Amino acid sequence: MNNFIYNTPTKVYFGKKEEEKIGTIIKEYGFKKVLLHYGKSSIKKNGLYDLVVSKLKENNIDFIELGGVEPNPKLSLVLEGVKLCKENNIDFILAVGGGSVIDSAKSISNGALVDFNPWLFSIKEKTSTAHIPVGVILTISAAGSDMSNSCVITNDETKEKRGFNSEENRPLFAILNPELTYTVSPYQTACGITDIMMHTLERYFSLGSDTPLTDNIALGLIKAVYDAGKIVIANPRDYNARATLMWANSLSHNGLTSCGRSFFMSVHQLEHELSGMYDEIAHGAGLAALWPSWARICYKGCPNRFKKFSNYVFNIPNTLDDSDILEGIDKLEEFFKNIGMPNSLRELKVSKESLEKLADNAMFHGKRTLKDIIEIDYSKALEILNKAY
Amino acid sequence: MNNFIYNTPTKVYFGKKEEEKIGTIIKEYGFKKVLLHYGKSSIKKNGLYDLVVSKLKENNIDFIELGGVEPNPKLSLVLEGVKLCKENNIDFILAVGGGSVIDSAKSISNGALVDFNPWLFSIKEKTSTAHIPVGVILTISAAGSDMSNSCVITNDETKEKRGFNSEENRPLFAILNPELTYTVSPYQTACGITDIMMHTLERYFSLGSDTPLTDNIALGLIKAVYDAGKIVIANPRDYNARATLMWANSLSHNGLTSCGRSFFMSVHQLEHELSGMYDEIAHGAGLAALWPSWARICYKGCPNRFKKFSNYVFNIPNTLDDSDILEGIDKLEEFFKNIGMPNSLRELKVSKESLEKLADNAMFHGKRTLKDIIEIDYSKALEILNKAY
Repeated sequence: MNNFIYNTPTKVYFGKKEEEKIGTIIKEYGFKKVLLHYGKSSIKKNGLYDLVVSKLKENNIDFIELGGVEPNPKLSLVLEGVKLCKENNIDFILAVGGGSVIDSAKSISNGALVDFNPWLFSIKEKTSTAHIPVGVILTISAAGSDMSNSCVITNDETKEKRGFNSEENRPLFAILNPELTYTVSPYQTACGITDIMMHTLERYFSLGSDTPLTDNIALGLIKAVYDAGKIVIANPRDYNARATLMWANSLSHNGLTSCGRSFFMSVHQLEHELSGMYDEIAHGAGLAALWPSWARICYKGCPNRFKKFSNYVFNIPNTLDDSDILEGIDKLEEFFKNIGMPNSLRELKVSKESLEKLADNAMFHGKRTLKDIIEIDYSKALEILNKAY
Repeated sequence: MNNFIYNTPTKVYFGKKEEEKIGTIIKEYGFKKVLLHYGKSSIKKNGLYDLVVSKLKENNIDFIELGGVEPNPKLSLVLEGVKLCKENNIDFILAVGGGSVIDSAKSISNGALVDFNPWLFSIKEKTSTAHIPVGVILTISAAGSDMSNSCVITNDETKEKRGFNSEENRPLFAILNPELTYTVSPYQTACGITDIMMHTLERYFSLGSDTPLTDNIALGLIKAVYDAGKIVIANPRDYNARATLMWANSLSHNGLTSCGRSFFMSVHQLEHELSGMYDEIAHGAGLAALWPSWARICYKGCPNRFKKFSNYVFNIPNTLDDSDILEGIDKLEEFFKNIGMPNSLRELKVSKESLEKLADNAMFHGKRTLKDIIEIDYSKALEILNKAY
């Protein structure tokens, strides 16, 4: 087991109607001026925007607004947010939405206290050491950004999508009411289910076998998401299944499922290139299209972990050859298909011609390889992309 | 799934040699005057005391000392600590030891900022709202006090042992190096294994079945502790097994394994009376002697959860009757015996005559019953104690 730091300071308010506490929570922290940050029209349609505004006013909390965050949140809006924070002495950012809104808020929160472009954090030329606190009201179970240290931003000029991890990125608090996700579309729900699963799959399928507690937790989470995912697709208003997905969303990416492990997130890296290049591709859909091909090509890097996964999650009896492994991969691919996810890049209308460019981008144009259970260089990346096509 | 608040602010530094960072960590927080709190002679024998003192001096951190914490930490020493804090303007308490030292530190930390006896927190006549921050270097995997909100103190005058939970009780940081537990005696190691397991067993065996993610995590933890416990008893210097126990120690009592559930901790309540009355009884040993009898009497309150437990932890095939449940209870009792724990109160030299008094104390002399999967009143408590005799 590797040494690790476990740092999950985000205070979680989980359950029905918890969002009604937003005014009193912010008031208790004593913040003076809030930037209310959100996406497109959904929170205005479903009444959440009105509720939040009324609670802020009720508690005499001064705020300004910045809406308009898009999926794959853009640097241009971040820069607008940074400007607003500096001009208005903002001391707290409230992100109401999903992972894109939260990541946009995180990038603003880091950028507001420095005199350079926060994109330098994303491309790791600068390290964040201070930020304006961010609070979250989550509306989609997917990215786990509500408790995580990660932040993924797309540079609209260069089309590059880059993630950076920093303990400064962890929100101060997160309000998670599963009921707020009832109205998420089946497709977006399925994308979220895939993303949640993938955050732990990519942690679990890594080298070493000396972390049984972390492994049991990881497999337990994957299984719970698999079971709840099927229920939610059939019945979007099943509270307990929505609650399972929402809590898994947080735990899957806050560090719990990788304590003591080194992991790689290669499929995430490949997918970031994909949705960076094709703005219309949802992150979860890209992951679903890529993972089975990654797994079939790379599983020999840690076959015993794949065997445990097949057995625990799908009740597949272990075999002496690799057939149980391949059956587990098939089962997960089938699950993705059943919840409405693509099984290939072709379904996502990716052009065959772009695969080489995607592989090259993922290698940062020859500057890196991906250290995975099997090392992924340019030709291996291209092999995965071709198999996923 | 019930609404819940999840609050685990304690920053964990986990792994080999992490204790060497203690000076720089305290320095970074900027604390001015430290109370170094510890137990009896063990940290002086194994060199940890010398290391900590040298790191504090190296970093020019001013400190005073209060050693002498005993198992079942005493109110009298807490009061001494409170006096020291007030007289010396202490702004940080460093607890070096196990659960007793940490709980003693927590009680001092709450008492230092008020002008009444902190025992009033323990008997719930006062609520804590502020405390001096506590940091931990853990030396025994057991109580999970390093991340928990709980604090158990024994009033040496009245012989009452009382726990109180408060978010103010959560330590600021915890340093967990599994190597520091290599020298814990086999008996104390076994007591710790029992305590760790029991914190999650008592959360898992509760009413409701709508928390599959929490349940999977809980069972995964119990299984990991069962497997690692056997390894550690056979080989006390197995790093990975010691590490599994240490990390489970924290996760088992920080709230993770009960998210969304209501639970009761009845066996803990009964055991507190036991080790309150018999100072020489170790908490874990008392729990091991009591749990199987509690389980055999109460399992019908949630039989399906017992069936899952038997199947997941011990691979016992599920049956149509209750035989799989009873076999699972037997297996855990056998495990306790194999690691050196008592299977009865008689082995702990409890007098048969004291059982009625124990049951009466546990009911706070007629003032309460224990709301468990089956309600435990005086006569049910006595039935459990008699069966455990």
